[in-house]
Amino acid sequence: MSDKTRVCIVGSGNWGSAIAKIVGANCARLSNFDDRVTMYVYEEMIDGKKLTEIINTTHENVKYLPGHKLPSNVVAIPDIVEAAKEADILIFVVPHQFIRNFCSSLLGKIKPTAVAISLIKGFDIAEGGGIDLISHIITRHLKIPCSVLMGANLANEVAEEKFCETTIGSRDMKMAPTFRDLFQAHHFRVVVVDDVNAVEVCGALKNIVACGAGFVDGLGLGDNTKAAVIRLGLMEMIKFVDIFYPGSKLATFFESCGVADLITTCYGGRNRKVSEAFVKTGKSIKELEAEMLNGQKLQGPITAEEVNFMLKNKQMEDKFPLFTAIHKICSGTIQAKDLIDCIRNHPEHMKITHVAKL
Amino acid sequence: MSDKTRVCIVGSGNWGSAIAKIVGANCARLSNFDDRVTMYVYEEMIDGKKLTEIINTTHENVKYLPGHKLPSNVVAIPDIVEAAKEADILIFVVPHQFIRNFCSSLLGKIKPTAVAISLIKGFDIAEGGGIDLISHIITRHLKIPCSVLMGANLANEVAEEKFCETTIGSRDMKMAPTFRDLFQAHHFRVVVVDDVNAVEVCGALKNIVACGAGFVDGLGLGDNTKAAVIRLGLMEMIKFVDIFYPGSKLATFFESCGVADLITTCYGGRNRKVSEAFVKTGKSIKELEAEMLNGQKLQGPITAEEVNFMLKNKQMEDKFPLFTAIHKICSGTIQAKDLIDCIRNHPEHMKITHVAKL
Repeated sequence: MSDKTRVCIVGSGNWGSAIAKIVGANCARLSNFDDRVTMYVYEEMIDGKKLTEIINTTHENVKYLPGHKLPSNVVAIPDIVEAAKEADILIFVVPHQFIRNFCSSLLGKIKPTAVAISLIKGFDIAEGGGIDLISHIITRHLKIPCSVLMGANLANEVAEEKFCETTIGSRDMKMAPTFRDLFQAHHFRVVVVDDVNAVEVCGALKNIVACGAGFVDGLGLGDNTKAAVIRLGLMEMIKFVDIFYPGSKLATFFESCGVADLITTCYGGRNRKVSEAFVKTGKSIKELEAEMLNGQKLQGPITAEEVNFMLKNKQMEDKFPLFTAIHKICSGTIQAKDLIDCIRNHPEHMKITHVAKL
Repeated sequence: MSDKTRVCIVGSGNWGSAIAKIVGANCARLSNFDDRVTMYVYEEMIDGKKLTEIINTTHENVKYLPGHKLPSNVVAIPDIVEAAKEADILIFVVPHQFIRNFCSSLLGKIKPTAVAISLIKGFDIAEGGGIDLISHIITRHLKIPCSVLMGANLANEVAEEKFCETTIGSRDMKMAPTFRDLFQAHHFRVVVVDDVNAVEVCGALKNIVACGAGFVDGLGLGDNTKAAVIRLGLMEMIKFVDIFYPGSKLATFFESCGVADLITTCYGGRNRKVSEAFVKTGKSIKELEAEMLNGQKLQGPITAEEVNFMLKNKQMEDKFPLFTAIHKICSGTIQAKDLIDCIRNHPEHMKITHVAKL
């Protein structure tokens, strides 16, 4: 047996395939990693051929990342246990609603010393309501530590090797150099922090804020108002982490996972786009999902609902007037035009001397 | 003599007139302020009439803020000493290149107990090179404390009463409630902090970053790269304040003067626009200023040069690779396409465990 670190990518969608380009190249180049990177691929038939066979012969994921070659040391495998069983590092990059099923399949079938890193954005719904972090689900089910990687990383731009940054929140800082070696590229710059929960929570909450930014666009309120809504959203993200995942650091929100990903999502991104259309067309979110997203669910409204469940439970809705207003707009309780009236007396504006008091 | 606080607005351009709407209304409404707000107006003839007379009869600054009524208690005065002599609060909102002259005119002619607040964005050039903060110039020349007000506040949108936020950096926190009363409106939300230098420096440095964002747009590098450049710009802003104005707080950069104003400037704003055209047309900044700005100077390249003078002097150019690259691009030393290569190994990307170490 080699003592080289073996890597498995669990998932092969757009983002999974983009990251496979980087991870595959790094494993081929660096002596401490095993060349062979396994990639679990959900088997599909494409023009009469198996997707795994297409990937393993043409080295292209023709369905989810067409036009890009994967390194030839990335091996597509249709059986998740087969793909994962020898891995020291498991990279999870699957749609978040499937994560519990994948964990069930893998339980007891992976190395007990393996570590996980999740690239999955969004929360899962906890039993009884509220939110559950994907990294916590992985750790709970598989009994292994789970780090996260989040940032302003639109998959196609990463695949095109356009310059960007990312943030890794590492559970074990001894792993930090390994994670950096595994993910860093000339065009993909990694910063590793130990503030795992904050990194992961940012990646979900930003979608709520993006809905607010989209409403502002739809209402035609202008640049000042949009900047204010994004900033208040950021302050509510910070406060949410502070209350529900205490111990995080303000500096983490300045990383790519924080302010950079938030900006990208509030100016590009489909949550913004659909929310703008919501105001301009008067159609429901559901109708727009059907029209604009082929029926896929928009993440922001779901996350807003899950977050609202927690805030309501703790009687904290008034501490998060933006999140609360966005949820009410998405669920039809209030109208988008009422958004600004909900945040005029934001707790942030009451803090007359707050910095002086720090 | 009344013991009510008297307010003078020194300046009557686009931003000065927009803020006069708010300040005038607040002084009329609040019992601790004198109703009469004086506004120093540089006298000009408009269609054969004096601008001050037009303002004092029609209550509209037809030249700089047409279409908006100023409150009738705002009185335009063409003599700066006459306007300022009885004021307890002097609001400076003039083009920054004139500030020294105005201070000379006012020296010894104002109340010794008066306080100033500057709404002027941008640095002035210090004697011998480098930068001088406008609030420091006012304090040095007039021997009175000077606070600042900065934020994502495009003047026309403020005049249209679209919702936004602003940040006041107050030299004396006992003045905080007074400043908030004077500037806060239903649509203009004020947060007061004591971190004056950071608030003011943000308002100038953002224009450098906006040039970088414009170059990225011109080069067509996409959303991820733009977010990375904006974030790295923010990190260099924080580091610059930390080195040259020590004692500031990280939280200040989350206020409207920081992240919000930066976002607005990097997505709207003329520095971004001209910088995009710089890449796309191949013309010089000077040519573009003539074509796009009626010959007015673009703030970003000037600020980048002033900042570079300081960084070079302290042998710190390599700690600020983005600011340095933007200056070199604006001054023609390197090409815009070299921007990304200058920031691939940014010091921020070397900080593998920096949060853990905090």
